[in-house]
Amino acid sequence: MIIDRLYEAVKEKGFVCVGLDSHLDYIPNYIKEKHEKISDIIFEYNKTIIDATSDIVAIYKPQIAYYEANGLEGLIAYQRTLRYLKEKGLLSIGDVKRGDIASTAKEYAKAHFKGEFETDFITLNPYMGMDSITPYLDYLKTGEKGVFVLLRTSNEGAKDIECLDYNGEALYFKVGDELKKFADELTSECGYSPLGFVVGATHSEEAKKIRERYKNIFFLLPGYGAQGAKAEDIRTYLNDFNGGVVNSSRGIIKYYQKFEDGEERFAHYTREAVLNMRKDIYGE
Amino acid sequence: MIIDRLYEAVKEKGFVCVGLDSHLDYIPNYIKEKHEKISDIIFEYNKTIIDATSDIVAIYKPQIAYYEANGLEGLIAYQRTLRYLKEKGLLSIGDVKRGDIASTAKEYAKAHFKGEFETDFITLNPYMGMDSITPYLDYLKTGEKGVFVLLRTSNEGAKDIECLDYNGEALYFKVGDELKKFADELTSECGYSPLGFVVGATHSEEAKKIRERYKNIFFLLPGYGAQGAKAEDIRTYLNDFNGGVVNSSRGIIKYYQKFEDGEERFAHYTREAVLNMRKDIYGE
Repeated sequence: MIIDRLYEAVKEKGFVCVGLDSHLDYIPNYIKEKHEKISDIIFEYNKTIIDATSDIVAIYKPQIAYYEANGLEGLIAYQRTLRYLKEKGLLSIGDVKRGDIASTAKEYAKAHFKGEFETDFITLNPYMGMDSITPYLDYLKTGEKGVFVLLRTSNEGAKDIECLDYNGEALYFKVGDELKKFADELTSECGYSPLGFVVGATHSEEAKKIRERYKNIFFLLPGYGAQGAKAEDIRTYLNDFNGGVVNSSRGIIKYYQKFEDGEERFAHYTREAVLNMRKDIYGE
Repeated sequence: MIIDRLYEAVKEKGFVCVGLDSHLDYIPNYIKEKHEKISDIIFEYNKTIIDATSDIVAIYKPQIAYYEANGLEGLIAYQRTLRYLKEKGLLSIGDVKRGDIASTAKEYAKAHFKGEFETDFITLNPYMGMDSITPYLDYLKTGEKGVFVLLRTSNEGAKDIECLDYNGEALYFKVGDELKKFADELTSECGYSPLGFVVGATHSEEAKKIRERYKNIFFLLPGYGAQGAKAEDIRTYLNDFNGGVVNSSRGIIKYYQKFEDGEERFAHYTREAVLNMRKDIYGE
């Protein structure tokens, strides 16, 4: 199962997920000067990041918005990046946050699980309810695909819906409990389900409660770095290392911009950013 | 403002929104046989539908999932369809249901409000909270763009989150009240705001309550036809005709398949489906 592969990747290479939020402003000039086509520019940027870090990164997560913003050329880069990862035997999450009625969800599944934009995992939005999630389960049952469903995100706005009080608890627990029913049926050898949750790393008490309640759920944890989450809480979520991956996007892919010789040593600094992140969280 | 244009379009041409859920299975064989490229096939299908109905349809809504499922070729058709509508002076909703943190939302806005996939309105998902909606407001303030935010959808799963009890009311009222604050600041000449809601046409009492509470909100109403909503309730939502548009996708774009001479008279039957829908809802 794909979740076992991710679990093993974390064990072997650490818990870092690199968010490929590949904005043109983040791309070194030397790459921009080398190519005519935007697809080539973005792809080379991503490829350099991947090649510099693939032995210390569990999974890569291109955020599709940054590609769509560059139109078809951007989407060609999105596609090439996913294909490159697959060729190299590396794992990917297409961060698309889809959520729609069942007939539409089937088309999204086609697009992102077997079409030109094929990826190992995608992110989903549960607002429209469980029948917007279930059409993806057939793909999960094959063992080849996984999803991360938004549960409690790390942005300020999480308070507006996700964290509202529902029967004396945060609403996201109600959402999580519903999702867990599907997740439980798919739990794999490694002890986790290919139906994971997106959980923003926030304050400690919450982290403990979420981790305890969803023992067999693998977490995709955004909010580290640019969105500011604490190392201690992240360790709680990771469940003794292997229970999730921690995403960092800007903190890694534009880290090189902090240095005078950043462009010349882009690959070096990118790798350094990943190593720093591991050290910061696990002191290793 | 774009919402005034939509309001006028409804007044002049009726309340029908045609959902361009352009699945390859729905496309007449004569179109498939004529072209090599999938983008040409899908585009000609859409163009034929548009040309046959543009005087009796307020707005067209391509659902991006159906295009993504066909990869880059599908997205070329998506792009060409939006451009064609714009050239003809017709209005469009890109049904993309995006919802993400502010930095990502800005990229989506770039993609769908000024990039290659430019459209007049897009649909949004509010699960992550108000800061996932506010980045679009700058575009709304220019008067040139609008959004429809998911409120209470027509699928079975709406009960799982949207309709949960929150302080004695359905949760979606809480969501709607928050959104209304932004909507109110933008209310235009026609009396409606360019920040509209997606509201699934369901039972009468609910329709009345929603319509009354959100007087200045323009509704995008799915659930007619394939998803089964009643004419009476739709009239309530429409607020004496002009307060929204009623989407039908399969009910219109594959209506021709019901007839033996469907392919030969594809344009004719498509138009007939729109006329039937108007008649069913307003008896005119």
